[in-house]
Formats: sequence, C-alpha cells, structure tokens
Amino acid sequence: MEAENREEGRRSGRRGSGGAAARRAARSAAGPGEKHYYIQRKIREYEVLDEEALALIEANAETVLEEIGIEFRDDAEAIALWREAGADIKGERVHFPKGLCRSLLKTAPQVFTQHARNAARSVQIGGKATVFAPVYGPPFVRDLDGERRYATIEDFQNFVKLAYMAPSMHHSGGTVCEPVDVPVNKRHLDMVYAHMRLSDKPFMGSVTAPERAQDTVDMCKILFGADYVDQNCVVINLINANSPMVFDDTMLGAAKVYARNNQACIVSPFILAGAMSPVTVAGTLTQVLAEVLAGASFTQLVRPGAPVLFGTFAASISMQSGAPTFGTPEPSLVSYGAAQLARRLGLPFRTGGSLCASKLPDAQAAQESANTLNMTLLAGTNFALHSAGWLEGGLVSSYEKFMIDVDQLGMMQKFAAGVDISEDAQAMDAIREVGPGSHYLGCAHTQSHFQTAFYRSPLADNNSFEQWQSEGEKRMEVRANELCRQWLNAYEAPALDEGVNDGLRDFIHQRKEAMPDAFT
Amino acid sequence: MEAENREEGRRSGRRGSGGAAARRAARSAAGPGEKHYYIQRKIREYEVLDEEALALIEANAETVLEEIGIEFRDDAEAIALWREAGADIKGERVHFPKGLCRSLLKTAPQVFTQHARNAARSVQIGGKATVFAPVYGPPFVRDLDGERRYATIEDFQNFVKLAYMAPSMHHSGGTVCEPVDVPVNKRHLDMVYAHMRLSDKPFMGSVTAPERAQDTVDMCKILFGADYVDQNCVVINLINANSPMVFDDTMLGAAKVYARNNQACIVSPFILAGAMSPVTVAGTLTQVLAEVLAGASFTQLVRPGAPVLFGTFAASISMQSGAPTFGTPEPSLVSYGAAQLARRLGLPFRTGGSLCASKLPDAQAAQESANTLNMTLLAGTNFALHSAGWLEGGLVSSYEKFMIDVDQLGMMQKFAAGVDISEDAQAMDAIREVGPGSHYLGCAHTQSHFQTAFYRSPLADNNSFEQWQSEGEKRMEVRANELCRQWLNAYEAPALDEGVNDGLRDFIHQRKEAMPDAFT
Repeated sequence: MEAENREEGRRSGRRGSGGAAARRAARSAAGPGEKHYYIQRKIREYEVLDEEALALIEANAETVLEEIGIEFRDDAEAIALWREAGADIKGERVHFPKGLCRSLLKTAPQVFTQHARNAARSVQIGGKATVFAPVYGPPFVRDLDGERRYATIEDFQNFVKLAYMAPSMHHSGGTVCEPVDVPVNKRHLDMVYAHMRLSDKPFMGSVTAPERAQDTVDMCKILFGADYVDQNCVVINLINANSPMVFDDTMLGAAKVYARNNQACIVSPFILAGAMSPVTVAGTLTQVLAEVLAGASFTQLVRPGAPVLFGTFAASISMQSGAPTFGTPEPSLVSYGAAQLARRLGLPFRTGGSLCASKLPDAQAAQESANTLNMTLLAGTNFALHSAGWLEGGLVSSYEKFMIDVDQLGMMQKFAAGVDISEDAQAMDAIREVGPGSHYLGCAHTQSHFQTAFYRSPLADNNSFEQWQSEGEKRMEVRANELCRQWLNAYEAPALDEGVNDGLRDFIHQRKEAMPDAFT
Repeated sequence: MEAENREEGRRSGRRGSGGAAARRAARSAAGPGEKHYYIQRKIREYEVLDEEALALIEANAETVLEEIGIEFRDDAEAIALWREAGADIKGERVHFPKGLCRSLLKTAPQVFTQHARNAARSVQIGGKATVFAPVYGPPFVRDLDGERRYATIEDFQNFVKLAYMAPSMHHSGGTVCEPVDVPVNKRHLDMVYAHMRLSDKPFMGSVTAPERAQDTVDMCKILFGADYVDQNCVVINLINANSPMVFDDTMLGAAKVYARNNQACIVSPFILAGAMSPVTVAGTLTQVLAEVLAGASFTQLVRPGAPVLFGTFAASISMQSGAPTFGTPEPSLVSYGAAQLARRLGLPFRTGGSLCASKLPDAQAAQESANTLNMTLLAGTNFALHSAGWLEGGLVSSYEKFMIDVDQLGMMQKFAAGVDISEDAQAMDAIREVGPGSHYLGCAHTQSHFQTAFYRSPLADNNSFEQWQSEGEKRMEVRANELCRQWLNAYEAPALDEGVNDGLRDFIHQRKEAMPDAFT
C-alpha cells in the first residue's frame, strides 16, 4: 500500500529530516494501524459521463470561453499576458479562441511530486495517486470541551499535530483553521511555520495576498534551499475562481507568485450549484471546465511547466433557504464528471473530502461526509482537501470530526488496494482444510493473515450491547474526543535542524516587525 | 425517475387496489419528496475485478463444487434430485461435475417482476432495476422513547406502515422485526398478514419452516388468486446458506415450497469473512460463488424457470473480538465482486443495505451505513434487503435509524438517474444570461427547475448555526424521532377488498386453532 516511487534522492538545502531522531519522531507519529503515505489506487475510476456527454460539455465550455469569456479583474499584467497569448480582450473580459487554453495546458505536468522536508512523506499528485489533506478555512472550532468558538493559533497547531500523527492523512494542509487571535496580515507566517515546524508532511501556502504568497515561498527557500524550490514543487496552493467566470486580483496575484516560483496551483471553481453555476449538473460542469481551462492555462502563461490542478468544489443549495447542502446526489455527479474532464485534459484533479452541513459530528455529518468521501475516492481524485475535520459547511474545524474522518480515510486507503488474487489470497487450501459445516477461525490461512486481513477502526464500537453499555454507552464522538486527547498528549515534534529553525524564526520576526498589526 | 415498464395489466384474483380509496391511501402514504417506485439505474456499475480475476474465481468455484462439494443436510428429496441431475453423492455431500450448476441455471430468469397487490407498486427484479427493502430479522427494537427491548407485533406493524409511507422504500420486506410476543409457530401468519393488509407494496414470505412457507403461499393465493400465483412471482424469500458449504433442511424445505410454487428465492451465503469464509476477498468470493451455484441451481431442479437471486451477505469480523464489523472495505470489495459474478451468471443480485454495528444512530451508524449503501447502489444490486432500520449488527430495528436511512435511499434514487444532457440541462442560455460575476438564483432556468433540481432531505439541517441553536440544537436522530411520530400518526391503510380480508383472517384463524402455541 505504500507508495513505491517515493523519491529518496539527495536534495539541496534539506537539512532536517534524517537520523534516529526522525525515526523516533516517525514512530511517535503513528496512530493506530499501519503507516500510510499516499494512496496508489489499484482500483478503477467510477465514471458517470459517456463519450457523447463529455464531448458535448467540452464543446460547450469552448463556446463559453470564446463567446462569453472570463473576467480577469484588476490585474493589468494578466490581461497583457492574455493579449500576448492571442486572446481577444474587451476591458477585463478575456475571450479565448477555441482550443487556446487546451493548447497552453500541454506544458502542465500530468503527474508531479510535492516534496516534503521528510522525503518519505513526499506525495505524488496525479495519476493513480490520491492524497488526503485536512479541512481548509474555518474561522471557528468545535473544541474538545464541546464549545464552538473562534479558532486560535493554538487550535491551528493542534490540527497540524493531529494531521501529522494520523497514519491515513498524507498532507498537513493549509488553513486548517483561521487563527483569528493573530493579526490578519501576520497570521500566514505563523501558519506556515506551524506546518514546517510541527509536521514533516507536505503543506499548503498562503493565498490571501501576493506578498503573503511570497512570504510562503521565501520560507520554503529557507527550509528547502532556493535552488531546490525553483526546480521542485514544495508547496501547493488553493486558487479559487470567483464563480461564475471571474478571477480576482487577490487570487491572480497569489497564482502568479506561485507559478513563477514553479509551485503548484489548484485552480478551483467554488460552486454552490444554483447560485454560482446553473442548477443542472451538465450546465455546472460546462462552467467549471471553462473556468478551469482559463485559470489553469493562465499559470502556464506565467511559467510554462508550473504544476497546476483541475479543482472543483461542488455543493448544491437548498432551494428553500439558499443554504449550502453537502453529501447530496447532484454535487457527487458534478465531481465524478469533473474528474473525467480533468483526466481527458491531462491535469491532476482535486475535489471532495468529508463535507457536511451538520453542526455536530452526528449521523447527518457522518453520512454526508461518507457520501462525499466515497465519491472522492471512486472518482479518482488526486488531491482531496477537507478530508478531515470539516463541520457546519466549512465554518467549523472540529476535533472530534477530525478523528472520525481520519478513521474513514484509513478505510478508503484499504479499499483502494483492491482485490488481491495471488495464489495465497485465493485460499483454496483453506477452503479444502475447513470444508462444509466448520469454521475458518482457527485455520492456518486465517491465522497467518489475521493481523492485516481487515481494516481495524480505532473508533468503531463492534462489541456486544452489554459490553458497550457497561462502558458507558458512548457515542462515537465521545470515543473520538478521548482518542484526540490521547494523541495530543502523546505528540512529539519531528526533528528540525536548529539552523533552519532559527532562519525561519528570524524571517518571521523581521516580517512581523516590518508592518503594523492589522485585524481586518 | 419512475419505472416505465410497470405492469398495468388485468390480474386474476386481484381485488383490492383500485378506486378512489386507493388513490387517497396512496396520497396519504406520501412522505416528503416525490413518489418513487423502484429504481431504474441510468448509471454504470462499478467493478473491482478484471476478466482474469473473474475467470480465476469462477474456475476455483467449480473446483470447490466438484472436489469438496456442498452438503444438503437432512433432506433425502434434495439428495435424490441431485443424484438424478448427475451429481456425485457421498452421504449428504453433493459433488457437482464442472459446469452442471451453470447449465441448470440457464432456465432461471435474468429479470422478473415481483407483483404487488397494487400493480403500480410491482417491482422489477434484475437488470438495471434496484429495489430497496427494509431491515430483516432483528429480535429487538430501539423504540421512539429510546428504549431497547424485545420487538412486538405492534412494532412489526409500525415498520410495515413506515415502509409503506416512505417514498424511497420500494418493498415492504419480510421480518422487519421478530414479534416475540406472538407464539413462534404462529407469528408468521400475523407477519404476512401485516404486509398484506397494512401495505400494498411487494413483500417477503416465511422461511423458518416448510409449513410456514406453505402458509405464506396459501395466503398469497387468497390475495392474488391461485392461478395467478402459479404463473407470477408475488413473494420473494430469503434462503440463507449455512456457510461454509452447507444447506440445511429448514432452508431447503422452504426453498422447495417457494420454487415449486414459482416464487422467488434469494440464495444467500451469510458470510462473516474470517469465520464462515476465508479471511481474503478472493477466497470468500470463491466460496460464495460455489454456494450460490449449488443452492440456486437446486431451485431449478425443483421447478425449472422459478425465479432465483444470487445473494451475498458480506461482513467481516474483528480479529480481536470475533464481533462482526460493517461498512469496512473488505466486505465492500466482496459485494462488488459478487455483483460482477452474478451478472456473468445471468442472475439478479442481492447484497448490502444500510448495515452498521453501532448501538445508536450516531456517526458510526451513519458512516458504516453510508459506506454500505453507496456500494450497494454502485455495485448494481437488484434487491437490497436491510436498506432501512438496521442497527447493532442486525440485532435491533430502530425507528430513528429507519427514518434516517430512507432519506439516504432517496438520495441514491436521485443519483441513479445519472446526468441529464438534454439541451435544457446543458443550460447554455442560463450561462449566457447570467454572465461573469453575477449569480443564478433569479435566472429563468433556475426558477423553472428549482422544485426538482436538487434532492431535498427531510431530515438534514442545513440552516445557520444560530437558527439550529434557536431550534434546540437537535441531533439528526431527534429530528428523525419527530418525523417518525408524525408519519405514524398520519398513516392510513391502503384499501383492501373486504372479501379478501375476511378470507385471510379466516385462514389465519383456522391455522392458529390447528396447533398449540409454541414459544421455542
């Protein structure tokens, strides 16, 4: 199940990951179950569109690009790049000759590696790989005392620790929650530092302003070395479209910084279907494809070859209240379809996660998340943001939900290994040995496989009713709360070279000193 | 979304479904959302085995059948039938020449209709149809006051009413709970009568003794007419194998009654992998296929052409405690694989449902159920028992879980409709009308579709945190409890011809008088 093609090569500027300390740290990071890195899917993708539907949506998207166009707002450089590339510019509206975006995207890699400071944690993005990353963006947390409150930098650090410790979590993520107790113009420094210092898994950068993207890149250069960063992807970044059909200067500014530095952008239409896109699946897919074609090809204008993903965040809305809904059939169909479009385009794909609208980690949260997550895996998603901790439509990072979700991620990883049909797995000798009317519990084949045969959930209670009752009739979230406290108590930071650490701290100190605090 | 090929024809002996009363009853049975009958899947099946794996498992199953054999216990007639068919008999062990079972199964229908007394509720079994049926078998209920206790006939009737009212439930099921307050040798009469009287959806028969199966058939003859029953499937019945590789006289006795009367048998290995089958997916599939080949082809010896399903109940066990586990990756792989084997064999397929081990309708219950149910649909399952109400490994029928599950079934039905690519669904005019930077809420296309565009959950809370808080911070199961009470209060029985009703009641009275009560 582990990645076979993990890069083990020498890396300039990498100083902090080797030796006994790192091995100890790695052991301490082991939650229950076996150690995973990223998923190499041995299963097929599930597809909902046939060739006719795909061709139709692709043709319609080209029509949208040419006839309606996409707006690149408040960014003269972007407009100039498009003009130079042969697009037809009307004010801030860019009209693309048919095939232009597809043609530009030929320089984008189908598969690339995002490097972690611990090479064993580097992940493949694209192809048959699936990488799980935590929730991104909530301003609130639901904490271990059951309180819903604004998130702090301590919460942020805690989620980074939990993601580091979770065997089924391949990535440290980005804004695992929004640390609102840190000034808005400085918190990105503390966030990026937390990912670098408290974890050795790959992570995401700041996109809330071009200078914060640049800070992220500069910190990566301290951690990995400047030359290394220029030649390798070390940070992956979420570039949302302002659907419908707009990219704004904030996102364009961040995208330019990252693309110019050869770092990965996930160009993601953020879709609440019925509000930001048509109310139908086919219409939504058309708009999503048009937006991604425009935004992703823009990164290739900035730097041909820069890694870029086809992203899709799909939810629908309640047509009664306008509230976003998750885990429902229509967004699943959108995401399955978008995954197919991405494969045809030759770009790695991001969607899904463990999305839900529920306010608590109850049955609603779990089934909405499971519906989304099953789709995420079967669609062949390469990068799955929001895979753990998401609650309340993304407003809340929940500790308990995080623990419940990472358990599910472990199940997905096991499923993705598919069916072993080796002679041993065929078990004909076991069937002969046991025969009619007996049982397999004691047979040699069972005994030799029982440690790894079945996924073991650290949270599911499969005991008898009487046993469960005698243990206090705990709901799953109560068990998740207990396990989460255990993990946080047991956390040990991975080793980091003191010189690198000092360099990062000095950089952060200088940057913070250079500007007054801002809170809006 | 509704079935297009529903039989509307005249039916001898059917007397109770027409007219205004039935229409009123049908309206009263409408829960929230649109009315469904059965699912006609417009989506593809998901497959986990390639041709090599399928051929290997099929060859291994033939080896098991020939070399190891299957035991048909305590049933001389069964042994005689097999001897006559060319099998090699050693005591109660039947060894099958390669290809014999497959050859016998050529007379079994790939697709058939199970008729309901209301023709509009008849269901297709096989092909692209998926039929959801309620939980089967629990001796306990978790009631609306939160108590876990033995089930009663009143509970049984309540679950029949709920299944009748749920738009996403296509079938009334069988032993929706075990009414332990009725003598064990008589309760089947009350159960079958409840299905016939309180619902007009198709139902299942008794399999706990051959004479109870005969009572079921005799009651069907009163409801549908004797000639009609002989020529049409009106009851579907669960025939479990005693895995590994045994059929016992109870199940064989029931199977013979139903097959002889041209009624459907679901031949289902009941598998807790690692106990009743090898600990591996490939080994389990081999044994499952061998058992189904033997049991299903047996029905064709009894009456060629009798409808029979390829069933698979798959769970794994905790290798620590031996407890069954649900919603985990390995049983999903087994079920996906078994669905492929069934399609190649040309038999309708049964598996899955909304299975879980949890004691409460909490996050564990919901995610285990959602994992199982997503698989059930995507595998192309034709008949899904246990689709609603299952809790605690099948020991408990839960009212709240039933309501939560039928909501999910509605989502599956919407998903199964796939992606509409009609010109209207392409929504190009809407995209043109809205353009960059606006929104779709008010546009004509959205307005014309908003009633049906998105699945509407009657239980999910998508409101703001503040709204949810002001409404009492209810968990999903609390809302499910409230909705369940509403439904039970609103229930109205479908019309039934008084003569038929009297005939059924007379039959039951006579049968009950004919034997003393038995409680074991």
